[in-house]
Amino acid sequence: MDLTLLAKLRQQNPVVLNLANWVTAQAVANGLNAVGASPIMSAEVQEAAAVVKIAGAVCFNLGTVTTSQVEQMQVVGRFANAQQKPIVLDPVAVGAVPYRRQVALGLLTTCQVAVIRGNAGEIAALADFDWQANGIDAGTGTGDLVKIAQACAQKYHCVVLLSGPTDIITDGHRVIQLTNGTSLFQLQVGAGDLLSSLVAAMLAVSPTAVFEATQVASAVLATTGEWVANQLVSERPGSFGTALIDKLHLVTAAEIQAILTIKGADN
Amino acid sequence: MDLTLLAKLRQQNPVVLNLANWVTAQAVANGLNAVGASPIMSAEVQEAAAVVKIAGAVCFNLGTVTTSQVEQMQVVGRFANAQQKPIVLDPVAVGAVPYRRQVALGLLTTCQVAVIRGNAGEIAALADFDWQANGIDAGTGTGDLVKIAQACAQKYHCVVLLSGPTDIITDGHRVIQLTNGTSLFQLQVGAGDLLSSLVAAMLAVSPTAVFEATQVASAVLATTGEWVANQLVSERPGSFGTALIDKLHLVTAAEIQAILTIKGADN
Amino acid sequence: MDLTLLAKLRQQNPVVLNLANWVTAQAVANGLNAVGASPIMSAEVQEAAAVVKIAGAVCFNLGTVTTSQVEQMQVVGRFANAQQKPIVLDPVAVGAVPYRRQVALGLLTTCQVAVIRGNAGEIAALADFDWQANGIDAGTGTGDLVKIAQACAQKYHCVVLLSGPTDIITDGHRVIQLTNGTSLFQLQVGAGDLLSSLVAAMLAVSPTAVFEATQVASAVLATTGEWVANQLVSERPGSFGTALIDKLHLVTAAEIQAILTIKGADN
Repeated sequence: MDLTLLAKLRQQNPVVLNLANWVTAQAVANGLNAVGASPIMSAEVQEAAAVVKIAGAVCFNLGTVTTSQVEQMQVVGRFANAQQKPIVLDPVAVGAVPYRRQVALGLLTTCQVAVIRGNAGEIAALADFDWQANGIDAGTGTGDLVKIAQACAQKYHCVVLLSGPTDIITDGHRVIQLTNGTSLFQLQVGAGDLLSSLVAAMLAVSPTAVFEATQVASAVLATTGEWVANQLVSERPGSFGTALIDKLHLVTAAEIQAILTIKGADN
Repeated sequence: MDLTLLAKLRQQNPVVLNLANWVTAQAVANGLNAVGASPIMSAEVQEAAAVVKIAGAVCFNLGTVTTSQVEQMQVVGRFANAQQKPIVLDPVAVGAVPYRRQVALGLLTTCQVAVIRGNAGEIAALADFDWQANGIDAGTGTGDLVKIAQACAQKYHCVVLLSGPTDIITDGHRVIQLTNGTSLFQLQVGAGDLLSSLVAAMLAVSPTAVFEATQVASAVLATTGEWVANQLVSERPGSFGTALIDKLHLVTAAEIQAILTIKGADN
Repeated sequence: MDLTLLAKLRQQNPVVLNLANWVTAQAVANGLNAVGASPIMSAEVQEAAAVVKIAGAVCFNLGTVTTSQVEQMQVVGRFANAQQKPIVLDPVAVGAVPYRRQVALGLLTTCQVAVIRGNAGEIAALADFDWQANGIDAGTGTGDLVKIAQACAQKYHCVVLLSGPTDIITDGHRVIQLTNGTSLFQLQVGAGDLLSSLVAAMLAVSPTAVFEATQVASAVLATTGEWVANQLVSERPGSFGTALIDKLHLVTAAEIQAILTIKGADN
């Protein structure tokens, strides 16, 4: 895994455009800042061309989506495709809420995304697998998560990052699994959203190696979270959130490499 | 007080639907996660039926209300009533802003809420008592807070939680007063909002015992805050916020019981 | 510098009305609470008259501006002018996004603002100087920042606070420069927004001495941030954010005075 991307990110400090949800926007912005990117949020379609132009990559998050935000995403998506700025889609709760699934499918038709980042319930819903999602949480289902992620990637011609206790990254054929992380991520409402925007940040400095950049984003967040959780004397979600921002700023490629656990390779 | 509800909450991990304000949504979501519930936010009326269906209870917060959010609340409120999902109303600033009072009165006409959670100024405004509110803060007024809370509960046929230095919980007749807490709550912009959503979380696992569930929510937050404040060497609102999330995750019924101070009983 | 304004703020606890962006609203609200003001946010134009009436000052933030928020700002701005409530404008990203610059210019035509608070790229854009802004960040440009700030102040007949490693405060003629601060502010997505709202808070208790009140706001935040950063053993943006809220609540005028570094005076 090319962890030099982390240094490249910190050196280039790319602008990451987030069509964000308002629940986690601050955690995402602080996380992007901490790791070395420059976040910008936008809520008005009239500024679409300008904000895409200054961005290195774009992240769409459906967490508080409205019909007017969908329109904005469609316009931004077309500009981003035209200007070859990679798009990440975070399909929050598409497994539990049919309207959001319909929105996601519409966006996936309107524009080509580089990466979809979701939990098991969300990726299963986009890949047309049965799954019992639980609100914004992954829920429980049966099935081979690798096959679900691959089917989703093949269907939308993109890379899929199915995140959870194990992060599965696939371009539809090749598969990488990362087993780093901590259960404390599940208590951080913005952890998944930050991962999606962090993928966008890595794509901004590596726009043509999408599969590789997505792995690096997953590795940076999962190992940093694991490292931070290991410092805590008990399961403290508040302290974890603060320390995660601290360590995202300070973590080095060597520290990540030291605890990185990759499972599998090409499938 | 039936503090076994806390364990029940953590075991069932119910989905709590928040039609939230965007100032405190993240603090509320993290608080719900920490204590053991699963938050979902929604901003689009088209997904109303689906998000109500997956939720165990609903919380309406007027902190950044708009006319389009009011419409969404009315639709969600009708679905929630039809599906017997309890509704909590947090009437932010209705004591200071006539528009918000009008919105709250409209919602209270459209749907039956299970609990109204507000500060003295807000509850007084809904109960038609004179009171001098100060923006989103309780303000100063004279009058018997218990009588004000009872009048509000009787008027809207619901339980009222009037929160402040003393939390007053009443179904219009019975009254419980909790004197736990800390002045640091007043410096946490999301503390009241979290309390409202925490009431909804408790209602999700105890939908028919509304008066009792509301007491438990009040007890959990007030004692946890008091416990955390007692650990601090000085009045530190930032550290308090972080430690509150930590302790909401770890607090036990025994710890709550040990410091719980209930005043009065049936009136 | 009249640092007794800090005690006055804490004593009067004025309501500060924020037409905020939803990325940083919670950090801003917690910061205002910590320092001694009472934040209120508003998203609905129908409540404009009421929220202006209860406020001591108003802050407009363009961070997630939409056309409907612009309309709300125009109405609120006219009420604020009529009621002589000072307005602070935070023109987020006007240097990078033409739509936002157009919005800011429109607002500056509709109503008279007391203070504009922005970074170098934002102030340069409003003053019609060439500058290379970078998203929401200041970017890099050449030019005399003092002259740029003065030109902006003269053009809009207001005080300008150009914040950065050095804070420049000018009424177009007089210039004060503060060199306190810490590079950690650049990693806090809400630091600039909080500064703008803190200026509004100081104006609420000192509405006629705008130049002086703006200096005090800058001094309070910059020295507190510097003090907090000096306590940290390494560059930890998460811990910094928490400790900043702690110290904003506890900092005294004497502590500020002890490390305050003012450069220049009348120009």
